[in-house]
Amino acid sequence: MTFDLQALVDRIGLPDDAARAAAEARQRELTKPTGALGRLEDLSVWLCGVQGACPPRPLDRVRVVVLAGDHGVARTAMTSAYPPEVTAQMVLNFLAGGAAVNVLARQNGASVRVVDVSVDVDWAELGAAVPDDVVRGKVRRGSGSIDREDAMTREQAEAALELGVRIADEEVDSGADLLIPGDMGIGNTTPAAVITGLYTGKDAASVVGRGTGIDDLAWMRKTAAVRDAMRRGREHRADAVGLLAAVGGPDIAAMTGLLLGAAARRTPVLLDGVVSCAAALVAQRIAFRTREWFLAGHLSTEPAAAAALERLRLDPVVDYGLRLGEGTGALVALPVLAAAGATLREMATFAEAGVSDREDGPDDGEPDAGSPAVDAG
Amino acid sequence: MTFDLQALVDRIGLPDDAARAAAEARQRELTKPTGALGRLEDLSVWLCGVQGACPPRPLDRVRVVVLAGDHGVARTAMTSAYPPEVTAQMVLNFLAGGAAVNVLARQNGASVRVVDVSVDVDWAELGAAVPDDVVRGKVRRGSGSIDREDAMTREQAEAALELGVRIADEEVDSGADLLIPGDMGIGNTTPAAVITGLYTGKDAASVVGRGTGIDDLAWMRKTAAVRDAMRRGREHRADAVGLLAAVGGPDIAAMTGLLLGAAARRTPVLLDGVVSCAAALVAQRIAFRTREWFLAGHLSTEPAAAAALERLRLDPVVDYGLRLGEGTGALVALPVLAAAGATLREMATFAEAGVSDREDGPDDGEPDAGSPAVDAG
Repeated sequence: MTFDLQALVDRIGLPDDAARAAAEARQRELTKPTGALGRLEDLSVWLCGVQGACPPRPLDRVRVVVLAGDHGVARTAMTSAYPPEVTAQMVLNFLAGGAAVNVLARQNGASVRVVDVSVDVDWAELGAAVPDDVVRGKVRRGSGSIDREDAMTREQAEAALELGVRIADEEVDSGADLLIPGDMGIGNTTPAAVITGLYTGKDAASVVGRGTGIDDLAWMRKTAAVRDAMRRGREHRADAVGLLAAVGGPDIAAMTGLLLGAAARRTPVLLDGVVSCAAALVAQRIAFRTREWFLAGHLSTEPAAAAALERLRLDPVVDYGLRLGEGTGALVALPVLAAAGATLREMATFAEAGVSDREDGPDDGEPDAGSPAVDAG
Repeated sequence: MTFDLQALVDRIGLPDDAARAAAEARQRELTKPTGALGRLEDLSVWLCGVQGACPPRPLDRVRVVVLAGDHGVARTAMTSAYPPEVTAQMVLNFLAGGAAVNVLARQNGASVRVVDVSVDVDWAELGAAVPDDVVRGKVRRGSGSIDREDAMTREQAEAALELGVRIADEEVDSGADLLIPGDMGIGNTTPAAVITGLYTGKDAASVVGRGTGIDDLAWMRKTAAVRDAMRRGREHRADAVGLLAAVGGPDIAAMTGLLLGAAARRTPVLLDGVVSCAAALVAQRIAFRTREWFLAGHLSTEPAAAAALERLRLDPVVDYGLRLGEGTGALVALPVLAAAGATLREMATFAEAGVSDREDGPDDGEPDAGSPAVDAG
C-alpha cells in the first residue's frame, strides 16, 4: 500500500477552541441583544474555530469539487429514472457552465472543478474534448453492480481515496478557504443508501428514496438492490476501505478522501446531499475528528441523508426539499455561513457605536436599579 | 382627508399569471429532474409572477427601508430590556453602517435607507447631525402609551401611511426591484403583538414574546400592557386606520403604507420579523391583494410572527431563531430568492445541453420502452 491512510488520520486535528471562545465573547459586544442573531451566532463561532481566527476571514475562495462516476447497479437493477449516459452528458454540461451547480457557484462567487473519477465513458469515442485535468486521476469506467459484485478492487478504492486527498491538497494549496463536495452519477444514491444503512443500523427500506424521481416499481427494485448490497457489505463494517471497495464506488471513495484531506489541512467543508453525507460517515469512521470540520449544508429529501446527519450529529443549514446533488444544496446554504461571518466581522460593538447596553447588563439576570438608563423609564 | 387610501387600494393588482405559467414550463426543461430544486422552484415561479417576466431579472437594486420610532408603552410599562434612548443611538449606528442590517445589506449588494418616523429625540439637542432625508417626514416624537391612550391621532396615522406610500414611490422611481421593510424601535414588539392578537383572534399571552430578551417579570408587565391595549383596540378592528391610531404607532403605520405602496407599484416585498408581519396584516386588511406581493423572509422567535404568517398563509424562507428586526431576517433569506431566480434564468435546458431526459419523459408516468435511452439499461 503506497497510500498511508494512517499517516493522514494522524494529521487531522481539532478546530481552535481559543478562536471559538473569542467569537463567543465578541458576539456579546456587538450592537444587538445577545442571541438575537440566533443560529447565525453559532455558525460564526464554528467558522472562527475552523479558521483559527476571530473575527473570521471572508470566504473569498470557495471551491466546489464535483466528483463524477457511474454505478453498475444503475444498469443492472435499473435503480434510476435517467439513463446512465446522462452522467457523461452532465459532466459536459458542468464544463459548459450550464448546470445548477454552475449557476449557484457564480451566484456565490465560488468556482467549480469537475473530476471524472469513474464515469463509464471513453471521451474520445464520444467525440467530446475534455480537459486533461478532468480525467487525469480517473480510477476506472463505472463500478461493479454492488448488489452482486464488488464496486471495485481494494487497490482501486485506495487509489480513489488518494485522488480525493490529492485534490484537497491542490485546492488548499491554491488558496481554497472552504470546500464543497459535489456529486454527479446516475445511480449514486444507491451506494449512498447502502453505506448509510450499514453505518446507521437502518434497514434498506428506511434509507432508500426516490433519487431523481423513480416510480414505485423502480423504488422496489432499488430497495432490493440496497438490501442485497447491505448483506454483501456487512462483513466490511469495521474496515472502511474494504466497505468502499465492496459496496461504495470510486467517486464516493474519492469524496471520502477529499473530506479527510480537507480536515487534515484544517479546511472547512460544507456538506451537500445524500452522497456527501454517506462519504462523511465513512470519513468519520476512518478519523472521528473529521466531523468537526463539517457543516451540513442542507437536508436532502433522500431519507439516508437525514439518517447520516443524525448519526453525525450535524444540523443542516437549509431544508428546501432539494434532491439534485452536484453541490447545489451546500451552495444554497453558503450565503448563510457568509452572513454569519460578516456580522461577527463587521458589526460595531456597543462601545464603538455609543449604544447603551441593556439595563440589567448583557450577561447577568440581575436588574440594576441604579443604572442611569432606568431614569428614562 | 387629503390622502386617498381607497385610490391606492384600487391601484393594487395581482401578479402576472402568464409569467408564472411560463416559469413553471421552463422549470421542466432545465437540466435537472423536475422538482429537484424543491422550494427554489416555487420561489422562482413567485418571482416571475411579481416581476411579470420569465426568466426573472436579477435582483440588482434591493432596498431596505428601516422605519424607526419610539413607543410610549416602553417607558410607562417598561416592556423592553433596553432603555428607549437606544432607538436614537441605533439610528446613528445605521447611518454609520455598523448595525447588523448594514452588514447584511452590504453582503447582499443591497442598500439601506433610514427614516425617523417617530423617534423620541430632538437630534439637534442630542448634538447629532442627521441628514435631512432621514427626518423630513417625521410624524411625531414617540407614541402614546397604547395600554391607556391612543398611539397618535387619526390625522397622524394618515400622515404616517402617506409617508410610507411616498417612500415606496420614491424607491420604485429610483429603480428598486425589491423592498425590505426594516424596523427599529425599543418597545415596538408590543404594538406588533397587539395588532396581531386583534387580527388573528389570539389572546395576549399567545402573542407576547421576549422581545430583546426580557425576563419573566417584564414579560408579565408586557402581557398585561398588550391585554389592556387589545381591549382598547378591539372596537377598531373594522377600521384599520383607526386601529393604527389607537394601538399601533407611527412607524408601523408608515410600514403599512410602504407595503401598500410597493404592491400598488407592482414591486415585491420581502417581509422581515414580527413588526413587518403585523404591518402586513394591516395592509392585507386594507387591500387583500397586497399579500400576493409579499414573501415571508424568516420566522422570528416572537410568537406573534408565526400567528401573523399563518393568517397571511405565508411560509417563511428561513428559520434561524433570529429576533433582531432591522430587516436582518429578510436579508438572510434574500440569497435564497436570488438563487431561485438565477437557476431559472441561467441553467441550460435539456435541449441546449444535449442531455437525455428521463426514460419515461419528464411529465407523464408512462414508461416508454421504445425510447433509445432504454438501450443503455
